[in-house]
Amino acid sequence: MSNDASPATPTTPTASTTPNVPNDPTVAGYLDALASNAPAPGGGSATGLVGAMGAALVSMVANFTTGRSKYAEVETQIRGALDEAETIRQRLMALADEDQAEYEALSQVRKLPRKTETEKVTRNAAIQRATEAAAAPPLEMAAACRRALELSAVVAEHGNHFLASDAGVAALFAEAALRASAINVRVNLATIDDPAFIEEQERALNALLEGTPTLKEEILAVAGRRMVGG
Amino acid sequence: MSNDASPATPTTPTASTTPNVPNDPTVAGYLDALASNAPAPGGGSATGLVGAMGAALVSMVANFTTGRSKYAEVETQIRGALDEAETIRQRLMALADEDQAEYEALSQVRKLPRKTETEKVTRNAAIQRATEAAAAPPLEMAAACRRALELSAVVAEHGNHFLASDAGVAALFAEAALRASAINVRVNLATIDDPAFIEEQERALNALLEGTPTLKEEILAVAGRRMVGG
Repeated sequence: MSNDASPATPTTPTASTTPNVPNDPTVAGYLDALASNAPAPGGGSATGLVGAMGAALVSMVANFTTGRSKYAEVETQIRGALDEAETIRQRLMALADEDQAEYEALSQVRKLPRKTETEKVTRNAAIQRATEAAAAPPLEMAAACRRALELSAVVAEHGNHFLASDAGVAALFAEAALRASAINVRVNLATIDDPAFIEEQERALNALLEGTPTLKEEILAVAGRRMVGG
Repeated sequence: MSNDASPATPTTPTASTTPNVPNDPTVAGYLDALASNAPAPGGGSATGLVGAMGAALVSMVANFTTGRSKYAEVETQIRGALDEAETIRQRLMALADEDQAEYEALSQVRKLPRKTETEKVTRNAAIQRATEAAAAPPLEMAAACRRALELSAVVAEHGNHFLASDAGVAALFAEAALRASAINVRVNLATIDDPAFIEEQERALNALLEGTPTLKEEILAVAGRRMVGG
């Protein structure tokens, strides 16, 4: 959601009555709130959740692999992937909350008075700072999702082959959430005035996005091969 | 998860103690269960949920568009997209449950006795039928996700432009869940003996997948243009 959406929404309920990740609603409750015209959760929160689902599926494949004699050779590697995927999953869930907090902070700043020239200058500067802050959680989500995608490659190649399909699904979710994170950064960059800040963010994003469509297809090819016993 | 995973998993808890979509756990509880080596939820359930999140984001954009004078010209179209996206969202949540039920049914069938030749023949035939049944929910998920992707195009092009980024995220989730659904169908097809059944399922899948990478990129281009006020 663009940070300009809120002022155009007079009928939205207050955030405190809306289920969201911090309040940890039921799955169905979260989906209802996402679909509604409540101010939260939005696409940023949902992106963190889909990335976390990708990481969770990496963990699932690892959990069905570790401790089995058939996979003893890759035990250290799988155990490492599991630990990292779990850290990433928790971080992505936290980033979903942080994304929402930054969005709410920006919404508050937009309500600052703008009658006098001084007020306008003060408000605009505050909006610029808050918008730059709002770009931070999705950029960190992008980095976490990139790593989740790389970990899905590890479990697709070396994990329990009975769960190769889940490794492929993990790759799809991680890559989709990575690209969604990029969109969520860029919707903030669209209203930022500082060209140096924009350039720095774009450079970081492009590094995270580089080669990911190819990597995803390679993981899906490996998962497809191992699904049929290869 | 392949339907062969269960027999190799002596340490998994019973399904009744595992949070899943029918019991409607919290979001964090669902993620914990997904990451674990519990028999459910797995990649099939998660795919239904990500598809439902795509549909929910279509609904969100529509809910921020409908009833506004600025978008009066597209009111009928947006209202239609909203109604359909909500139907798809509910269906995908139900399919996540059905996927899990079919998986559990197949796990039960695999426990049939196989000492005598007659028992082996009976068991194998039952596994074939149960595997064919297990392919049905992901195939229907694929169809629902394809439609969610098409609806994301409608709201990306005609919805409230302040939420254009969310329309783009919707397209990413719908397309990822569509491709994940295809993987979940194919992991079942890998153990089916009937070539005619496989051919029919592949034909249906290929029709649903056709042109979707291009469609997704087109939607992202429209969303990107409208994010910057275009």
